[in-house]
Amino acid sequence: SEDQKVAQSSSATLEGLKPVQGLEVTKEGKIFKITLNRPQKFNAITPDMYNGIKDALIASNADKTTSVTVLSANGAYFSAGNDLTNFKKAASGDPKIIKEMAEDAKILLKNFVDSFVTHEKPLIGLIQGPAVGISVTVLGMFDYILASDKATFHTPFAPLGQSPEGASSYTFPLIMGPLRASELLLVCKKITAAKAHEYGLVNEVVADSEFSATAAKIVEGFSTLPPESLRVNKTLLRHLHRENLLKTNEHECEVLAQRWQSKECHQAIAAFLTRSKK
Amino acid sequence: SEDQKVAQSSSATLEGLKPVQGLEVTKEGKIFKITLNRPQKFNAITPDMYNGIKDALIASNADKTTSVTVLSANGAYFSAGNDLTNFKKAASGDPKIIKEMAEDAKILLKNFVDSFVTHEKPLIGLIQGPAVGISVTVLGMFDYILASDKATFHTPFAPLGQSPEGASSYTFPLIMGPLRASELLLVCKKITAAKAHEYGLVNEVVADSEFSATAAKIVEGFSTLPPESLRVNKTLLRHLHRENLLKTNEHECEVLAQRWQSKECHQAIAAFLTRSKK
Amino acid sequence: SEDQKVAQSSSATLEGLKPVQGLEVTKEGKIFKITLNRPQKFNAITPDMYNGIKDALIASNADKTTSVTVLSANGAYFSAGNDLTNFKKAASGDPKIIKEMAEDAKILLKNFVDSFVTHEKPLIGLIQGPAVGISVTVLGMFDYILASDKATFHTPFAPLGQSPEGASSYTFPLIMGPLRASELLLVCKKITAAKAHEYGLVNEVVADSEFSATAAKIVEGFSTLPPESLRVNKTLLRHLHRENLLKTNEHECEVLAQRWQSKECHQAIAAFLTRSKK
Repeated sequence: SEDQKVAQSSSATLEGLKPVQGLEVTKEGKIFKITLNRPQKFNAITPDMYNGIKDALIASNADKTTSVTVLSANGAYFSAGNDLTNFKKAASGDPKIIKEMAEDAKILLKNFVDSFVTHEKPLIGLIQGPAVGISVTVLGMFDYILASDKATFHTPFAPLGQSPEGASSYTFPLIMGPLRASELLLVCKKITAAKAHEYGLVNEVVADSEFSATAAKIVEGFSTLPPESLRVNKTLLRHLHRENLLKTNEHECEVLAQRWQSKECHQAIAAFLTRSKK
Repeated sequence: SEDQKVAQSSSATLEGLKPVQGLEVTKEGKIFKITLNRPQKFNAITPDMYNGIKDALIASNADKTTSVTVLSANGAYFSAGNDLTNFKKAASGDPKIIKEMAEDAKILLKNFVDSFVTHEKPLIGLIQGPAVGISVTVLGMFDYILASDKATFHTPFAPLGQSPEGASSYTFPLIMGPLRASELLLVCKKITAAKAHEYGLVNEVVADSEFSATAAKIVEGFSTLPPESLRVNKTLLRHLHRENLLKTNEHECEVLAQRWQSKECHQAIAAFLTRSKK
Repeated sequence: SEDQKVAQSSSATLEGLKPVQGLEVTKEGKIFKITLNRPQKFNAITPDMYNGIKDALIASNADKTTSVTVLSANGAYFSAGNDLTNFKKAASGDPKIIKEMAEDAKILLKNFVDSFVTHEKPLIGLIQGPAVGISVTVLGMFDYILASDKATFHTPFAPLGQSPEGASSYTFPLIMGPLRASELLLVCKKITAAKAHEYGLVNEVVADSEFSATAAKIVEGFSTLPPESLRVNKTLLRHLHRENLLKTNEHECEVLAQRWQSKECHQAIAAFLTRSKK
């Protein structure tokens, strides 16, 4: 199948970047492409993938031959978010091990999110299917999101005993106002692509059958704009929010590291992993 | 009638809270409920009710058995806002009395609005009918608003010689952008529930016939989420805005205390009270 | 034709204000009116017009007989934005001349935008046709925008090697969220009046045939509100954003002055002026 073929090539990367299972990093003309490629696991993000995406965003900043950066995904899901098997070690119940794990995960997450804050090119997201957790929250730092009508957006933090990240506690109220931000981040309603469009989290929704063609056309169009202007103007638009985003990310990571050490979180994740095994 | 029956029980309250005419405070399972219950006066808010709502919000913060707080109202109106008969004393025209009244009202209002800023649980508003003035402006600090299609939203500050409060000069531009905020708060257009939904001031609108059932289902659903996560996540979402909200409230109260001592305000309120008597 | 008749009277102004070609400044009852009147050049804004609009906004602040300020335009276009023939001098290619020109234009622009930030009356925009560049970006500082369905909104900064101004890097993310702000200001999509309405940049859209009548009715209605309240409440709503707007304007002007001295900008403008001549 198409998915399997793609999965086999999952470590395609650029010179100077470490190959990462589940991630493709390529260049096509003026387009720097980062592709989630772990479709058999719904593109859940492993520690290596967090670092791989971060490194790719930094590499794109340094690359003068491309003018825009694109994040997309292979398979039916955009991304199931944080791979909760990352938390398996916590099952030991040993508070010292759990604390260590929380501290490591905090640093991993902080650097990952910072690489979106400090990105210098227009960042285009192509959301072809369901997006969950961190794969939704970082969208607030993108510049253009195209979604298929098969995409959904869900940030189930409270049910999993966790707290919002991806600088979403800053970006979501700015994008959609605090009431809608609470609807998503606090009481955790799942929304459709149409609703995400209405809420300003998505710029454009198309039928799934038209998704690939529309995506190619949009990305191509944006990539032909003068590259220096794109970079200067992206920096200008980020200027006002940069410090707030970095601070928010730091605060969110602190809160989340505490949550990861809480009983509510352990119980919720244990229940989730049990359900998943069945 | 239903309204009268409800009105007779209007001082239902919780142990430790002072009973207040026109206000019910109750607990149902994991839900802390505050209900405006002065339907014969369109739930206009008296000084005792301001303090009663504030005390209830503080009591809900301290209550560990409930996970969400709900504000709703009995009768056809959600609330006519500030009870303008509060200003009757000002009719004397004595600047000293008016100044005293303005200073008292300023403190009353400031503490009332602060109790929304510092609330620690998800705050759900059930707006079954027209909402006016302060009962609209504080909605910007809620986490989820369900409105009946019979609800309307009106903040007629300028026609009454007054100025926006409820931290709305901060929350409304964040929710709907400055142009729409000016449409409501500056040139004072009344909007429907559908428009309020479009503007992000309301999360969901349902037909009046489905209002009670939908409200019960929503509140019940949210109340079953892990309580500690709800509290941590509400605090996280409020974190970025807390200082701004407190400062905005203070500034708005200062400006409003000045307005209450202005000729424009006295003339407008005198005209309003005369119209109401007819 | 109507346009020509209007154009002949293009220097109508008020006592104390210097007449400016392409600009009318008048008072009608409680309405202070500023009208772009250079329809044969699509109301492109000349240096004199920048200063004339700034002076008119300041004069309206000082005028106690009017309660609202209206900006409208004659002809088919609202405004083509900055008159790019302003840049003809740059064609010399002499870096010293270009730098001087950039510094002068920076000061002109800064003072122009500041006069919107510090305006003290409700500012109503009547957008009867296409709006481009600076005539779009300043709309974020208005209080009510009525648009004809013939209006469009376009800010093609990157294609012209330029960067956003008009404090739009602050107001646009607040109005429509950062993703939609990037759609307009970074990748430069042109939008219809309906889309601008959806994005909160326009309060109301009407069919072109109803535009004049609706505009007259709206402006008349707002102008009858108590003038002191309007001024106090406008100041209150601006209070939270004033410093940010001034700082943003300063930063945007600095960045733009650099862009004006860049090769990308010179090539883009040279190409534009060549196309226009054909």
